[in-house]
Amino acid sequence: MNEYDFGTVGLGVMGSNILLNVADHGFSAAGLDLSPEKAAAFQSAAKDGQKVFGTINAEDFAKSLKTPRAIMLLVPAGIPVDSAIKSLLPYLEKGDIVIDGGNSYFPDTNRRFQELKEQGIHFFGMGISGGESGARFGPSMMPGGDKQAYERLRPIFEAIAAKVNGEPCVAYLGNGSAGNYVKMVHNGIEYAIMQLISEVYDLLKRGLGHSDANIQQLFADWNKGELQSFLIQITADILQKEDPESGKLIVNTISDWARSKGTGKWTSQNAMDLQAPIPSIDAAVSMRNMSAHKEERIEAAKLLNGVSTNTENVGDAILSQLKDAYYFAMINIYAQGLAQITIASKEYQYNIHLEEVTKIWRGGCIIRAACLEDFREAYSRTPELVNILLDEKIGRSVESKHQDAAAVVKVALDKHIPVSVLMSSIAYFDSYRSAILPTNLIQAQRDYFGAHQYERTDREGLFHTIWEADKP
Amino acid sequence: MNEYDFGTVGLGVMGSNILLNVADHGFSAAGLDLSPEKAAAFQSAAKDGQKVFGTINAEDFAKSLKTPRAIMLLVPAGIPVDSAIKSLLPYLEKGDIVIDGGNSYFPDTNRRFQELKEQGIHFFGMGISGGESGARFGPSMMPGGDKQAYERLRPIFEAIAAKVNGEPCVAYLGNGSAGNYVKMVHNGIEYAIMQLISEVYDLLKRGLGHSDANIQQLFADWNKGELQSFLIQITADILQKEDPESGKLIVNTISDWARSKGTGKWTSQNAMDLQAPIPSIDAAVSMRNMSAHKEERIEAAKLLNGVSTNTENVGDAILSQLKDAYYFAMINIYAQGLAQITIASKEYQYNIHLEEVTKIWRGGCIIRAACLEDFREAYSRTPELVNILLDEKIGRSVESKHQDAAAVVKVALDKHIPVSVLMSSIAYFDSYRSAILPTNLIQAQRDYFGAHQYERTDREGLFHTIWEADKP
Repeated sequence: MNEYDFGTVGLGVMGSNILLNVADHGFSAAGLDLSPEKAAAFQSAAKDGQKVFGTINAEDFAKSLKTPRAIMLLVPAGIPVDSAIKSLLPYLEKGDIVIDGGNSYFPDTNRRFQELKEQGIHFFGMGISGGESGARFGPSMMPGGDKQAYERLRPIFEAIAAKVNGEPCVAYLGNGSAGNYVKMVHNGIEYAIMQLISEVYDLLKRGLGHSDANIQQLFADWNKGELQSFLIQITADILQKEDPESGKLIVNTISDWARSKGTGKWTSQNAMDLQAPIPSIDAAVSMRNMSAHKEERIEAAKLLNGVSTNTENVGDAILSQLKDAYYFAMINIYAQGLAQITIASKEYQYNIHLEEVTKIWRGGCIIRAACLEDFREAYSRTPELVNILLDEKIGRSVESKHQDAAAVVKVALDKHIPVSVLMSSIAYFDSYRSAILPTNLIQAQRDYFGAHQYERTDREGLFHTIWEADKP
Repeated sequence: MNEYDFGTVGLGVMGSNILLNVADHGFSAAGLDLSPEKAAAFQSAAKDGQKVFGTINAEDFAKSLKTPRAIMLLVPAGIPVDSAIKSLLPYLEKGDIVIDGGNSYFPDTNRRFQELKEQGIHFFGMGISGGESGARFGPSMMPGGDKQAYERLRPIFEAIAAKVNGEPCVAYLGNGSAGNYVKMVHNGIEYAIMQLISEVYDLLKRGLGHSDANIQQLFADWNKGELQSFLIQITADILQKEDPESGKLIVNTISDWARSKGTGKWTSQNAMDLQAPIPSIDAAVSMRNMSAHKEERIEAAKLLNGVSTNTENVGDAILSQLKDAYYFAMINIYAQGLAQITIASKEYQYNIHLEEVTKIWRGGCIIRAACLEDFREAYSRTPELVNILLDEKIGRSVESKHQDAAAVVKVALDKHIPVSVLMSSIAYFDSYRSAILPTNLIQAQRDYFGAHQYERTDREGLFHTIWEADKP
């Protein structure tokens, strides 16, 4: 009775790995799952001397935990989270803490926070990134909501988190659903960077005829310098993994229809509600959707001459241009996501400090990369920075690579390779650095056909014009 | 008592113009508005001998209409629609017809349809396009929902609609909220084409230093050939409209911060729910949002060297390339929107016939254009066409202009002019015609970090690999 420090509901990959990580750091850990097999597997995966307990009984689970209880939900987003809360409630007491560690949609987190507050239960949403391996050996964790409750659990979370320069990749991020929100945008950035990597791969492979080994070497090299990142590193791993049966690269046998779980989509949809432009993330969501239209694409390829057979040599300059183009787009992608968080923090009163966000993204999470330290430094210099492109060091560095990014797009256009995220990143950058955009014409059009009125640059007020040439 | 053929709630620009249009065609027309001024203005705007009635009293309004009543709501989307219905209900009888003629969000239409059905009232949503002038002299109308109710009102709607070759631009489109849905996507297409036009204008003006008069001439010329369209025509009008006071072009005094009412955003958000890729519309939504970040853009322009001062002559070839690029992007924009409607029709069981949609878009509406007749013909040839790019005639014609579209992007890249919709259209086309996309790599990445599994091309099932180089 009341012996265990920490519990999870859900003993799937994430739940059981988080608990084993907790146990590795000297805490006792209990897990609840509907599946007896998973409960048993978890218990037997612990090392000698570690105190762990797996069960399928909610009451036993609740009784096993020290009070006030600390329970993390690691179940799929949506109805399963509400079901898990419902099944626990009869056994909880005032002051207990419930943490949603999944990818919940942030408005759901706000609702649950209120519902559980009425029952005296402290609730907070905490995005966790790092996948299977991160959960086991050190994830990045993004908690938000009830700060006092977080403080009580901080020792456990700081112990199990990834570390960068000895600093844990976990920090209280802000009010309400701030944690889930930041994790949602993290995933949006992840979508865009994955799509960007696939565009580089596609241009080299289909467009320029490079061998898989060449492309593998390129990513492995990139991972040694300023482009160092988890996603580049795993790409280099993937591009050398052979199928033991056939000896072929496994990646070449994989279907080109990508699945998704919705967090990238939510990022784009919410950005549109906030008027936060994130065209590179939108493009990544759109390209995953395009990948699903496989039959149509096969038919279109027959009719519309797919990839160009023009094999003229573009020279080796393309390889260094590609590296700069990748850097250019990558920074623009982070800029868009971080700016969205800044806007959301104001709109939803999260009070998020971007330096904390970039600090805990440096390690453990899927989008960890060498550049995160640059971002952290930028926010440290200017805490109120609304966009990292406005940091002189970062902005100038991105600008210096614009020409190479453009050069890569030109080659891709000639080869008919779609580089959607790369192009969207250039459009983002070029529009962001345009003090004047041609949107005055759009305002005039709206006033012409819909009498929607317009603002002027030379005086205050709203104006309407009778535009028709043949009207007085 | 019970003398008037047709009524509207709302006597703003749309409501009063629709009623005057109804009166012009020999029907009697009644209008209800909260404002006595609007009610009076409507009544006095009618011609001698026309039977019209304006009131601020809901009961008088309802009593004035022949039964079963035909009442169209022309009030702003959202709560005003529900309020208008609520204020009318006490005076309505079973069998009356209520038509929502505004830009309602389509799930609201489904809800209202059910609520009014329970009261014995026939409800249908009908998108109306054409703006102020269209409403007065012939709009395009997109009704969906209760077909029998529509049939009763068809004579009035066919009389007031725009005509193309004698055919009215109105047709029953499908079940439930089909009418509002089609109008929503119409507006998404409208956003993208307006943005595309602004990109052409920007490239010519900021990028290549053309005079306003030159640009005006270009659009006026375009409007005479295959690019003929309402939006090109009004652009040519706008670019010659002078401020009588200063003698300057009015467009040059207009602020570059564009407003929007949400229909473009809904189109993008819903497309993401349906996995329908519409990157050009997404980009247009994103660029309107970018336009709002004026202060940041001014700051960024100082730091990041805005538009290129490189003034080297690109030659006159650019003008014919621009024309082809516009055609290329325009067709891709329609392709995306029409494909989205096709997917939605299946998902929501609307049973929409795309030939009808393209037929009624040929006249009256904001996106009317010469190319709509080509689309109508394509759907007539192949009613089950899932994408107009798969029509041989249209697809080949678009493909033949890819190179010029690419050439324009290259110039824009050199000049630092953001051509977001043009680039997104190329990415759409090049990915759509790719039988194989590099998404296999994304599938591998997702399996690497999240154990999400993948499908293979050489056998059935779901697979998982231990990818790490240092693991067995």
